[in-house]
Amino acid sequence: MKVYLDNNATTMVDPEVFEAMKPFLTDNYGNPNSLHSFGSATHPALRKALDELYVGINAKDSDDIIVTSCATESNNWVIKGIYFDKIARGDKKRIITTAVEHPAITATCHFLKDLGVELTVLDVNDEGVITPQQLRDAMGDDVALVSVMYANNETGMIFPIKELAKIAHEYGVPFHTDAVQAVGKIKIDVQDLDVDFMSFSAHKFHGPKGVGALYIKDSQELSSLLHGGEHMGGRRSGTLDVAGIVGMATALTLANKYLEFENSHVKSLRDKLEDAILKIPEVTVVGKREHRVPNTILASIKGVEGEAMLWDLNQAGIAASTGSACASEALESNPIMEAIGVDKDLAHTALRLSLSRFTTDEEIEYAIDEINKAAKRLRAISSTYAYTPAGHISGL
Amino acid sequence: MKVYLDNNATTMVDPEVFEAMKPFLTDNYGNPNSLHSFGSATHPALRKALDELYVGINAKDSDDIIVTSCATESNNWVIKGIYFDKIARGDKKRIITTAVEHPAITATCHFLKDLGVELTVLDVNDEGVITPQQLRDAMGDDVALVSVMYANNETGMIFPIKELAKIAHEYGVPFHTDAVQAVGKIKIDVQDLDVDFMSFSAHKFHGPKGVGALYIKDSQELSSLLHGGEHMGGRRSGTLDVAGIVGMATALTLANKYLEFENSHVKSLRDKLEDAILKIPEVTVVGKREHRVPNTILASIKGVEGEAMLWDLNQAGIAASTGSACASEALESNPIMEAIGVDKDLAHTALRLSLSRFTTDEEIEYAIDEINKAAKRLRAISSTYAYTPAGHISGL
Ligand SMILES: Cc1ncc(COP(=O)(O)O)c(C=O)c1O
Ligand SMILES: Cc1ncc(COP(=O)(O)O)c(C=O)c1O
Repeated sequence: MKVYLDNNATTMVDPEVFEAMKPFLTDNYGNPNSLHSFGSATHPALRKALDELYVGINAKDSDDIIVTSCATESNNWVIKGIYFDKIARGDKKRIITTAVEHPAITATCHFLKDLGVELTVLDVNDEGVITPQQLRDAMGDDVALVSVMYANNETGMIFPIKELAKIAHEYGVPFHTDAVQAVGKIKIDVQDLDVDFMSFSAHKFHGPKGVGALYIKDSQELSSLLHGGEHMGGRRSGTLDVAGIVGMATALTLANKYLEFENSHVKSLRDKLEDAILKIPEVTVVGKREHRVPNTILASIKGVEGEAMLWDLNQAGIAASTGSACASEALESNPIMEAIGVDKDLAHTALRLSLSRFTTDEEIEYAIDEINKAAKRLRAISSTYAYTPAGHISGL
Repeated sequence: MKVYLDNNATTMVDPEVFEAMKPFLTDNYGNPNSLHSFGSATHPALRKALDELYVGINAKDSDDIIVTSCATESNNWVIKGIYFDKIARGDKKRIITTAVEHPAITATCHFLKDLGVELTVLDVNDEGVITPQQLRDAMGDDVALVSVMYANNETGMIFPIKELAKIAHEYGVPFHTDAVQAVGKIKIDVQDLDVDFMSFSAHKFHGPKGVGALYIKDSQELSSLLHGGEHMGGRRSGTLDVAGIVGMATALTLANKYLEFENSHVKSLRDKLEDAILKIPEVTVVGKREHRVPNTILASIKGVEGEAMLWDLNQAGIAASTGSACASEALESNPIMEAIGVDKDLAHTALRLSLSRFTTDEEIEYAIDEINKAAKRLRAISSTYAYTPAGHISGL
C-alpha cells in the first residue's frame, strides 16, 4: 500500500487541474501578449483564471494578484522590494519576523542583514506562535515591514494574522504573510485579514509546481523582483506560464470547494491518527488542534529518531517528513522544535504527518499500524542506535 | 489555414516534451527533496534532465546549470547579483550592455541606475550589432559586468560573443549573454564561448513556459535572487518544478537533434520567404542572412504599418509580430529599428516572421501569397490610413 502523508511538502496534482492545464501544454501554446489568434486564444482561460484567483482569496480586484513562479519568489519579492523601496534609501531600517518562518523568509532577511537591514526575530511560545503583544512591544518608527506566516509548515499552527496586521498598521507599517500552508486548508479572506502582501504556492493545494502568487493590496507600490517586459501590468516580467496560471486557479477553486470537507472529513482523519499516536507512551504533539490547520500533526516519539522512523515508514510505503522538505536532505534536528525550546534529543524525534482530501480512512488505519510497529521496533533497538549509529544505518 | 510564424515570441510544445512532462503532472508528484519513495521516484528523471541540460550547452558540470522560472529571472539574477556582490559594496560601479537588449536586461539596469549603478549602453551599427572594438573602447577598471545578447529577438542577428567575452576577461570582468534566441537555433558551446553566465528559456525552443536556466561557469559566486531552502545547491530556492525541468531538458535535447535540420531545411524555408518578400518593391530586411539565426526575418514594407499588416495576416490565420511580444500590446514603433537609426515612419512598418522546425513548405507558400495580398491592399489604402486612422481601423 502507498500512503502519502507529506502534503505539506507538496501535493498530488488534482486530475481536474491537469485536464485544465493540458490544452496550454499542447495546442493552445500562443503567447498571451501576442497580437494574433494564437495569442488571443489563451485570453478567455487566462481571464477566467485571474478571476478565480481573486475570488479565491477575496481580493478586491484581479490586478491585486501577481502570478510568480513560487512562494519563494513571492517572499523574496516582498522582502527585497521593501529593502529597495524603504531601507536602501535610508527611510527605515528594520524588518520584524518570527523564529519559525520558512527559509524563503529567513534566508532572505539574513542576506539583507549583511547589507544593513536590522532584523527583529520574535521568539515563539511553546505552541510555536507569537502573541500580538510581542509584536506590539517590538514595533517602532524604524520598521519597514512585518512578515509573519499564516500557518506554520511543520506544526500547522495558525498565527493571529488579522490582529498582527492591525498592530503593524497602527504604526503605518505594511504587513506581509506567507500563507503557503493556509491556502486550501482554511478560508482565506485578504480583505478581512487586511494584509498588504500575501504569498502562496500552487503545489501546496493540488496545483502544479513552479507557479505561485503575491497578493498586493490596492496594487500598492513595491519594486519588482523580476524587471523586464510589460507582463502582469509590468510588475512581474517573464512570458506568462498560461498552463501554470490556469492550473493554480483551478486548484484554488477546487480547494475552496473542498474546504468544508477539509475541515470536517480530513480533520477527523487527522484527529483519528493523532489520537492513535498519542496512545503510544511518551509521545507529544506540538500545538493545540483547534489552533492548527486541519491536516497537520507534528509529533515527537521519545527515543525514536525521526529519520529512522521515516525509513521504516518508507519501507511500508508511507511518506512522511521530519519537518520542512527543504532541509530534509540534511539530517538535522527539527528547527521549530528547537525554536519552541524542546531539548536537542527530542528535536531529533520530530515526525510530521500531513493529510489531504485524497487521504482515505483505510490509509490512516494502515498508517496507525505501521507507526506503532515502527515505534516499537525502533525503541527496542534505540540503545544500540544511540551508541553505534553506523550499525543503525546498516540495519535499516 | 493556420500558420504560426511567431516562434521568437514562443513556440509550440513538442508533443514528445509534453509526454515527458506528463508523469510529473500526474502520478509522480513527489517533492524531490523529500526522504521517501514519492520523492526519490523523481530522481532518475531529474538526474537525466540535468545531465541533458549540461550536455546540451556543453557545460563542464551539471552543477553549473541552475534552473530558474524563465530567462527574465536569469537575467535579473545576474544583473542584481552583480549589483549586490560588486556594486552595492563599492568595488565597481559600471555595467556595459547594448542598445538592443531585451527589456529583462534594460529595465533591470535602468532600475539599478537609480541606486547608483552607472550604465554604458553601446549603440548598434546598421546591422543591429556591436563590434568588439566598441566594447574594448568602453572597458575600464570600474566595470562590474558586461552583458550582451547572443542573438537578437527581432532581427535574429548573432553577436560575436566569443570575442566579446575575451575582451571582458582581459579586464578581469565577468561576461553574461542572454542566449534566449540562440538556443535551439545555433550550436551552443559555453566552454568554447567562455562566457561566465548564460540565460535561456525553455518555451523558445519547444519546451514549456515558466522554466528557464542560468549557466554559471565553474559555479562561481553570485548572490542568489531567490533565497530560501537548499534547492539547486542553495543557489536558487523554491520547490523544484520537476515537470518543467524534465520538459526543458527534453526540449533542449530535441532542439540539438534538429539543429542540422534547422540550419538547412528551416533556413531554406526562411530564405524562400525572405526572397519573396524582397521582391515586393521598397522592402528592406535588417541584417545579412549569414549573420542571423536561421529562422528570423525582420522586414520593413514601406508605407505598410506593421500593426495593420499583422491584422490582415491574422485574418488569414497567419501569426506574425511587429517585434518583441513583450511590447506588442502597445502600438509602438520597433525599438531595434529605432536603435539602428531608421526613421520613425519606417520603424512603424516592422514585420517579424520567425519560423520553426514545424513550419512547412505549404505554409510558407501560403504566407507569401497573403503577405503580398496584404501589402497590396494596405498600400492602396495607405493615404487614407495616413489621414484617417479611425477609418482604417473600421476598414479591417
Ligand atoms: C532575447 C530575449 N531575452 C529574454 C527573453 C525573456 O524570456 P522569458 O519571457 O521566457 O523570461 C526573451 C523573450 O521574451 C528574449 O527574446
Ligand atoms: C510556509 C512556507 N513558505 C514558503 C514555502 C516555499 O514554497 P515554494 O517551495 O513553492 O516556493 C513553503 C514550502 O516549501 C512553505 O511551507
